[in-house]
Amino acid sequence: MRNAAIIGVGCSRIGELWSKSIKDLLTESALKAMDEARVNKVDSVYVANAASNLLQGQGNLGAFTLDALGLSDIPAVRIEAACASGGLAVYNAVKDVRSGAANTVLVLGVEKMMDALPEDAMAAMMMGEDQEYTAYSGISFVGLQALMARVYTDKFEVPPEQLAAFSVNAHKNAVNNPNAQFHNEIDIDDVIRSALVADPIRMLECSSLSDGAASLVICSEEIAKNHPDSPIQVAGSAVASDFFSIADRDDFLSFKATRLAAEKAFKQANLTTREIEILEVHDSTSFTGVLALEDLGFAEKGKGAAFVADGGVDINGKYPTNTLGGLKGRGHPVGATGIYQIIDLVTQLRGKAGKNQVSDAKIGLSQNTAGLGSTVTVHILRRAV
Amino acid sequence: MRNAAIIGVGCSRIGELWSKSIKDLLTESALKAMDEARVNKVDSVYVANAASNLLQGQGNLGAFTLDALGLSDIPAVRIEAACASGGLAVYNAVKDVRSGAANTVLVLGVEKMMDALPEDAMAAMMMGEDQEYTAYSGISFVGLQALMARVYTDKFEVPPEQLAAFSVNAHKNAVNNPNAQFHNEIDIDDVIRSALVADPIRMLECSSLSDGAASLVICSEEIAKNHPDSPIQVAGSAVASDFFSIADRDDFLSFKATRLAAEKAFKQANLTTREIEILEVHDSTSFTGVLALEDLGFAEKGKGAAFVADGGVDINGKYPTNTLGGLKGRGHPVGATGIYQIIDLVTQLRGKAGKNQVSDAKIGLSQNTAGLGSTVTVHILRRAV
Repeated sequence: MRNAAIIGVGCSRIGELWSKSIKDLLTESALKAMDEARVNKVDSVYVANAASNLLQGQGNLGAFTLDALGLSDIPAVRIEAACASGGLAVYNAVKDVRSGAANTVLVLGVEKMMDALPEDAMAAMMMGEDQEYTAYSGISFVGLQALMARVYTDKFEVPPEQLAAFSVNAHKNAVNNPNAQFHNEIDIDDVIRSALVADPIRMLECSSLSDGAASLVICSEEIAKNHPDSPIQVAGSAVASDFFSIADRDDFLSFKATRLAAEKAFKQANLTTREIEILEVHDSTSFTGVLALEDLGFAEKGKGAAFVADGGVDINGKYPTNTLGGLKGRGHPVGATGIYQIIDLVTQLRGKAGKNQVSDAKIGLSQNTAGLGSTVTVHILRRAV
Repeated sequence: MRNAAIIGVGCSRIGELWSKSIKDLLTESALKAMDEARVNKVDSVYVANAASNLLQGQGNLGAFTLDALGLSDIPAVRIEAACASGGLAVYNAVKDVRSGAANTVLVLGVEKMMDALPEDAMAAMMMGEDQEYTAYSGISFVGLQALMARVYTDKFEVPPEQLAAFSVNAHKNAVNNPNAQFHNEIDIDDVIRSALVADPIRMLECSSLSDGAASLVICSEEIAKNHPDSPIQVAGSAVASDFFSIADRDDFLSFKATRLAAEKAFKQANLTTREIEILEVHDSTSFTGVLALEDLGFAEKGKGAAFVADGGVDINGKYPTNTLGGLKGRGHPVGATGIYQIIDLVTQLRGKAGKNQVSDAKIGLSQNTAGLGSTVTVHILRRAV
């Protein structure tokens, strides 16, 4: 099995991009990535998106994307796995390059959530859960997470200030990311004083509705060797799943799919947590961000929030996490998020993260989650030396 | 590259299945296919569906399907490419088996279109076209096809009776298919007297709105060899695309993507049209059915309808086509259609087509189309001797 590498990344900024269509956004991001990769054609395209049928009335996004880019003939596959659409698209592209089914693949994620009323965008997101048994009740994703967070904070006696620290770090890091949706710092008090969305989760702990698109060009390591910029090797790429509804699971305090995907990715990369220098975790809320740190093995179960509050995830901490803002600070354009995460890792591994640069980072890990961990992808990236 | 083979198929009947949910339907079809394949686990799952977010409020269908089947841990990928979702899912599964990325894959397509008002289901289907430039105008897919059919019938002087013959054959064949939506024969006069939907296309030339689910188990030929039933080899599996909107294309009388996909599939299979014994073509209308015969190379350009009217596609004709009803007779549950087509080929190649059996059929071809040919998949199946 040959290795895959990333030779080009591109994205739009994230925000309320009223004047740009999904076509504008995906084209902007794809052309940037292809330009950086110095390719004008690819063997195939994966397009990640969760809700364009509902929010823009646009389906058939594979063909739509080829058309927008002036490409034709090649396969284009649209992948939907709720918030993990992006990570799952990257997984499929890496699989194709590793197996030899393709040499150069464009992976693209796009989501425009601000065109709709917030309640409609939220309903679209809840379609990532079981409609007949869960969404039907009217509960939101934050509500579902709060059920878990309530048990978690009680059992491990986690003070709200410790969970809040995750968001504080996210906003601090986003300030220096020109593509981020939020450029305002917040402190623990701001979080604790913000509105209670679903006890114990507060507004400033929740990721936002966002518009944005992000693209990668992934190719075989052989092709990457000829590229003038330092290619980033995909050392691990894994996906795992769990029973759809949390009610069916054994464990209320952990995402099994995160653990399984991490296990597979570490094995592929022949690495352990100790060697990982930077992290991108799926902080749809500060709670799931903390849970990810634990399930991935970077913090002890029940002590993830304390680790965060003690500065463990700061740029200069033990495991710098979401160094360009994560879902909370950078924004969360659902289908594109898994790809933004990888772009932010690539930016760090290339030493291009500016004021937020983690000194000499060579190896990073990203985790992308659908719903409440029904599908989780884990990628491990490594700078070719 | 190793060969892929089909060792299990299963489907629900197609119709207005008010009492069954998408979960009921996909479970029924998947369990039948896995039972026939004699497997209780697979390496991965592909789920094809076009409109469940819109029509059932259900997304994240990969995780949803695993949960419904009591599976977990493995990758599940939901693929959407409008009416070609099914064929594209099969293409991806075959690719994974050929490359060694997986040994045994479940491919499943499901669509429930009768839950919605017909106008909402039609709007959902039009999302397979460009929303801002085409669907926005209010035109339907039949309307778009009619623009082509008008030019086609004028240029080649095709009488309406010849096109109508395609639907007559479809209904005749569906009568003996217990899974088909329609079990009534129609004649040329019935078609010609039916309502004009978009000149020159009439109601009885249009495929229907339908509910249904269909599944395949695809594995490596090595595994298939140990299976007691005669496995069906996937000799060709290809996809091609064309510019999204017909307005951007050179040719108004042909689907380029059909020609390209067929070319690739024939090359893989090392076969020509002469060796193909049965066909499944994507007759969203009788016009696109005829166009497919021409673009695939089974009829001369402009003479496809005459070929049909002369009995060329009958069970005992030169190229028996849509022998169990096709989209018009069997029904067209969009995301599942590409998989039903392959099941119907498998049924013939196994000699299990009952009254509609094509004598000693060994090689068949299926063509599945998205929108107006923006994405087309072609599969060539061959009975292992």
